[in-house]
Amino acid sequence: MARLVLKFGGTSVGDVERIKNVARKVKAVFEAGNEVAVVVSAMSGVTDSLVKLVDQISTVKHDDAEYDTVVATGEQVTIGLVALALQQVGLKARSWPSWEIPIRCDDHHAKARITSIETGPIEESFARGEIAVVPGFQAVDSKGRISTLGRGGSDTSAVALAAALKADRCDIYTDVDGVYTTDPRIVEKARKLDRITYEEMLELASLGAKVLHTRSVELAMKYRVPVQVLSSFADVPGTMVVDEEAGVEDVLVSGIAYSRGEAKITLVKVADQPGVAARVFGPLSEAAINVDMIVQNVSEDGKTTDMTFTVGRTDLKRALAVIEGAKKTIGYERVISASDVSKVSVIGVGMRSHAGIAFTMFKALADKGINIQTISTSEIKVSVLIAEEYTELAVRTLHTVYGLDAA
Amino acid sequence: MARLVLKFGGTSVGDVERIKNVARKVKAVFEAGNEVAVVVSAMSGVTDSLVKLVDQISTVKHDDAEYDTVVATGEQVTIGLVALALQQVGLKARSWPSWEIPIRCDDHHAKARITSIETGPIEESFARGEIAVVPGFQAVDSKGRISTLGRGGSDTSAVALAAALKADRCDIYTDVDGVYTTDPRIVEKARKLDRITYEEMLELASLGAKVLHTRSVELAMKYRVPVQVLSSFADVPGTMVVDEEAGVEDVLVSGIAYSRGEAKITLVKVADQPGVAARVFGPLSEAAINVDMIVQNVSEDGKTTDMTFTVGRTDLKRALAVIEGAKKTIGYERVISASDVSKVSVIGVGMRSHAGIAFTMFKALADKGINIQTISTSEIKVSVLIAEEYTELAVRTLHTVYGLDAA
Repeated sequence: MARLVLKFGGTSVGDVERIKNVARKVKAVFEAGNEVAVVVSAMSGVTDSLVKLVDQISTVKHDDAEYDTVVATGEQVTIGLVALALQQVGLKARSWPSWEIPIRCDDHHAKARITSIETGPIEESFARGEIAVVPGFQAVDSKGRISTLGRGGSDTSAVALAAALKADRCDIYTDVDGVYTTDPRIVEKARKLDRITYEEMLELASLGAKVLHTRSVELAMKYRVPVQVLSSFADVPGTMVVDEEAGVEDVLVSGIAYSRGEAKITLVKVADQPGVAARVFGPLSEAAINVDMIVQNVSEDGKTTDMTFTVGRTDLKRALAVIEGAKKTIGYERVISASDVSKVSVIGVGMRSHAGIAFTMFKALADKGINIQTISTSEIKVSVLIAEEYTELAVRTLHTVYGLDAA
Repeated sequence: MARLVLKFGGTSVGDVERIKNVARKVKAVFEAGNEVAVVVSAMSGVTDSLVKLVDQISTVKHDDAEYDTVVATGEQVTIGLVALALQQVGLKARSWPSWEIPIRCDDHHAKARITSIETGPIEESFARGEIAVVPGFQAVDSKGRISTLGRGGSDTSAVALAAALKADRCDIYTDVDGVYTTDPRIVEKARKLDRITYEEMLELASLGAKVLHTRSVELAMKYRVPVQVLSSFADVPGTMVVDEEAGVEDVLVSGIAYSRGEAKITLVKVADQPGVAARVFGPLSEAAINVDMIVQNVSEDGKTTDMTFTVGRTDLKRALAVIEGAKKTIGYERVISASDVSKVSVIGVGMRSHAGIAFTMFKALADKGINIQTISTSEIKVSVLIAEEYTELAVRTLHTVYGLDAA
């Protein structure tokens, strides 16, 4: 007997028929002799409608605690409906609102982090032979007020519950059937991966492969929870996200990720001295602008250097205004920006032990006449900024070069 | 400074603009120097949609606790939205889900009764100068699971909260501007009453004047909570529901109520002996069929009697089946039934001290050629069953005869 947490996203519980389908899936897993807790999102579209209601009423800045009170209701509806659907297929089932368990979080409403999960009530559910149905995306703060984890937080709820319950696996049911070597919409020969490491998944998730919420992967890695990504519509195995030791395929590169919607800002002739980075990124952070790649060139004259970084394209205007406003404290000659860039990345834990991976990438792109504007590397990733119009070509080229194409 | 509970029903919070209107109403009351708790229903239509989802999933009998988990979310949305709307008009406001306060109830899910309300948290809200926003229609059971009070329960929540907080008044905002002497759709000259007693209101409520939920009036009477029924759209005083001592107008009759959709069953030649009523109404009660008027004629032969009672028209078939099934234990000659009857009632605490009120009624109906099929009286009410086609004529006639017509 294994203990499993199954998570179903918004499209998987999107209507009555799909909820009945979820019940059948859960029944099969339970009757195979497993203990099962189910984590569900709100029905697709519901959270958006609730957010819209809040926005229509709070034209000025809103109170996040009240926002959470409204928005958290979506999952309360689905836990009840899924419990009822499970009862209809002959199982014992019980819904557990987050405040009843409780699932606790910090006091950062609308973007809270789970701090602890009481397991007693769910253990008792298991002992009674019940399926426990738990809402994703929410928890209660130190005062007992309902809070949400930010969009996509249901994955995180599922992994956190799996960790707390010491589950054997956390299965994330979604509308794709696994993690692919790259986006199948761009590369016809993209392959579904049987296994991928937490680190690789993290890079993929943060680079825009929207299969799993980043925070959920961090949590799975921290507590070594094996996670499976699989389809709630097809009946095939998905992709296992696991420790590096757990027999990941012996490959150099696991996938090619890309991210459009990037913008690049270069500060020309910034003083090359301690503290300058803080003076640049402090004001951006205060303005809640997320900075991604940061590249600082070697100083040529020993006095000044150029500094390049990327922000989301929608943040470009605000970022430029912030940089302009801080010109005196930062000290730079001028600013160059571009909003028509994409980031393309090659990801693989194999890079740690193999040289030449970056070189292969640069050469392949050069052969196609694609100019690399900026380069950034980490232990398991090489990212480049290129002109956006070359995105598909670059992704397809790299997918082939690293031997990822399906036979 | 007074302490007030204001309750807004589903149509009063039916959309974003109406919620903003509620905020303006509450602001005016608060700024007049009152402590204010607000009780809200779900936005109109929302509860019905949630019930429909449950029904679509649970084609067989459903688990009431899960039903409650789903259906209770409607009010959780409105408490958050109303709190946000109050903040937008510059007030401090805080929503209080029932499990946070808590409002406690018994374990009869889907038709629970409130057993206690913790007042500490709301008193603290008041002390901080906040408006407390509380969901109607729900509470938590002895195990801490969310429960609902049955349809219309929000009025009851408001009165119960007013009683617990020792509020000076409970204002029920609705889509009519008060309690009328009769249905204005039938009698053009129906007048809005300034005051009415709890007992009269109870009779009106249970007789189909759907202004206040019966249970809420019982509760108001028990804890002597003055209740005002008023419009959330017009800006005029409503009707006060109060103790008899509190200066009710010195009138004989306060109103004329009617109820269509009645059915009449007569058991001919029932044994006139102890226990027969129990044998008739026991099986009906077990089948959850609500019996309203019961009339037992005097026995003519000392051995048998006729017994007549009314049930809701939709229950008639089932009631007849139950009576047929229990024929042996009850013992009767035959059954007569009619499904085309209405009940018309004259209500007034003045009846207690004045004779002749019933006679006036019987004579007025006779003058119009309306045959009275059955009569039932209580201390403050005379009800008659008549052929349904005479309903409007009877109501108009009695409204005039008792001097209720507006000038």
